[in-house]
Amino acid sequence: MKRNNPRSIDVLRKIVVMAHEAINDFKALRNPNLNIPIRSLSNINFDEERRMIEMGDKTQERIFFHQGMSKKFMQTFLVANACTELLKVEKTTSIRDLFYMTKHTLSRGENTFDDQAESDIIIEDLEVTLGALREELHLFASNRGTMVGNLTLVDSGDTINARRIGSGGWGIPSIVEEDVIKFKDCDANYILLIEKDAVWRRLNEDKFWRKHGCIMIQSQGQTSRGVRRLIRRMHDELNLPVYVLVDNDPWGLYIYSVIKQGSINLAYESVRMAIPDARFLGLSSFDREKFDLPDVVTISLDKNDEKRAKQMLAYPWFKDQKWQKELKKLLDSRVKLELEALSAKGISFISENYLPDKIEGADFLC
Amino acid sequence: MKRNNPRSIDVLRKIVVMAHEAINDFKALRNPNLNIPIRSLSNINFDEERRMIEMGDKTQERIFFHQGMSKKFMQTFLVANACTELLKVEKTTSIRDLFYMTKHTLSRGENTFDDQAESDIIIEDLEVTLGALREELHLFASNRGTMVGNLTLVDSGDTINARRIGSGGWGIPSIVEEDVIKFKDCDANYILLIEKDAVWRRLNEDKFWRKHGCIMIQSQGQTSRGVRRLIRRMHDELNLPVYVLVDNDPWGLYIYSVIKQGSINLAYESVRMAIPDARFLGLSSFDREKFDLPDVVTISLDKNDEKRAKQMLAYPWFKDQKWQKELKKLLDSRVKLELEALSAKGISFISENYLPDKIEGADFLC
Repeated sequence: MKRNNPRSIDVLRKIVVMAHEAINDFKALRNPNLNIPIRSLSNINFDEERRMIEMGDKTQERIFFHQGMSKKFMQTFLVANACTELLKVEKTTSIRDLFYMTKHTLSRGENTFDDQAESDIIIEDLEVTLGALREELHLFASNRGTMVGNLTLVDSGDTINARRIGSGGWGIPSIVEEDVIKFKDCDANYILLIEKDAVWRRLNEDKFWRKHGCIMIQSQGQTSRGVRRLIRRMHDELNLPVYVLVDNDPWGLYIYSVIKQGSINLAYESVRMAIPDARFLGLSSFDREKFDLPDVVTISLDKNDEKRAKQMLAYPWFKDQKWQKELKKLLDSRVKLELEALSAKGISFISENYLPDKIEGADFLC
Repeated sequence: MKRNNPRSIDVLRKIVVMAHEAINDFKALRNPNLNIPIRSLSNINFDEERRMIEMGDKTQERIFFHQGMSKKFMQTFLVANACTELLKVEKTTSIRDLFYMTKHTLSRGENTFDDQAESDIIIEDLEVTLGALREELHLFASNRGTMVGNLTLVDSGDTINARRIGSGGWGIPSIVEEDVIKFKDCDANYILLIEKDAVWRRLNEDKFWRKHGCIMIQSQGQTSRGVRRLIRRMHDELNLPVYVLVDNDPWGLYIYSVIKQGSINLAYESVRMAIPDARFLGLSSFDREKFDLPDVVTISLDKNDEKRAKQMLAYPWFKDQKWQKELKKLLDSRVKLELEALSAKGISFISENYLPDKIEGADFLC
């Protein structure tokens, strides 16, 4: 992001204010402190009206003259300082890089950070304290996901026509804000998000997106921040419905739920990432009977699956009757299904039968 | 691949011959058998002249009337049959899909396959027996890796200018043979393959490829078949040197070695994938001193690292003095280094100092 971008100026200003307050406390012989919003199950709630997971108001103090907190206090300013540098030179970097940029040995032999897990937590602390996404602090997570379909966009000044991007597709970057990605010409009817790259590839080969007029994205498992934010922007700005296609197991359902409602960890970002109107296309536990899938393609639930499904049943944001029904059916049937299991019905069953049936029949979970 | 493509005709013909031989054996009351080349350390050798790992001549028999082999015999023909279907309908699919396509329950309650590991092995058996790559059997591995740089190519009829592909890049497909990918206008001086996507992203933001006239590919860890084959084709057809940038640990060195010399498992494919002239840019264990990297960014070798490095020291294809020196230095120093460790010297140290020094100074391992 350019240094003179209003958002960058705002973020830099907040960091400077935070630093000046600490310096003033030192000068006045007060104990410097930071108020950091709490990011855990105890400080989130499910907003029924907005239908998303949101962060509450609880904060914790981080003070400097305190044996248990002084290191974290120092780390917070080290990371804030590195982000200030990034903002000033208009460069972005990975959270792993940031760890190395801020890791050094202090005079008494102690390291500022020993492990990336430490600096990752500080990044999240800074995000909530400053009210700035990590992308606005010029930090990126890993690039993941590719896209193809009925849309032209501009990425860093280059025009990308996603209708003419071959079998490989366009790699979705991790920073997709307005100053990097701009949408141009779109003639898609919806966005189809697919958990698995092999299924995306199959559908791309069948040119499913051209026949049905859509944008197809694969997320390679749990959706990256870049993919979530991009889909949310397309949903808002291009007015496109979002359909999600995942494996029939607790993890697939959870991937869908994060896209729709947000996650506990990133509750403070729901407002910019969650898509409450996203629709679940499957696989549903009810699809086995509906599409007459043979038993041989099912996989038994293991202990982790069962534990996870039961945990999900108890979360407030899975209280909707349709979710409860779906999760209970999964537990009762004792089996899960992968998207590839549809191939037992034929190589193009998914593109020629399953998806058209689901979308045209408006056969959604919720 | 089109059904009337000469290579497809050849592969189909070989499958039909294999099937007819078995049928004729049945009719003549002989025990049908297949001769399958052995894919293990016992049947590979390092060709000193061609500088690559190659498969030897040893084969194993797979006969039908044999308690221990009849199931595998049946599985081989099941997979061959599914590939024949794929070739005939001109579609490709994933090896996971193939597992589901061929998995079913036989009349006595036994499954044709219980686990994908079983069908994966049969695919490799078929590849060596038929002398056809899995891509020629219309099977693909996962898509992985992205590309940007001074090259225009055609992917499935779409023209991709990799100089104008934004921050995200072009996703490299898993099938990159001549009928899918064609090279057009290239003004690159070399190919830079990077193990880590965060480093690729950093260099792409610095427009390293434009300044230095190169093609930049990231492989997200171990290089996929698609990436290996694509780089090999660019090396051969566009006459480009290949430079490899990986972490300084046994896994990074191994990634480089697979690109250069091939692997044990895929020895039969070296001839189409290995690039003996590929060059190692680093990180080298000697870079710590050369670039004055602080101790604090090093990571101690763990037991697996040590075990792996010792194993590599013993392989014939690491017998070159330079490899031995590098591996011994790694073991002696007892530490490894990630590419991101270079950021301790500054955010753009890698693009402005490290890489230009290495490439212009022709400072290569071997």
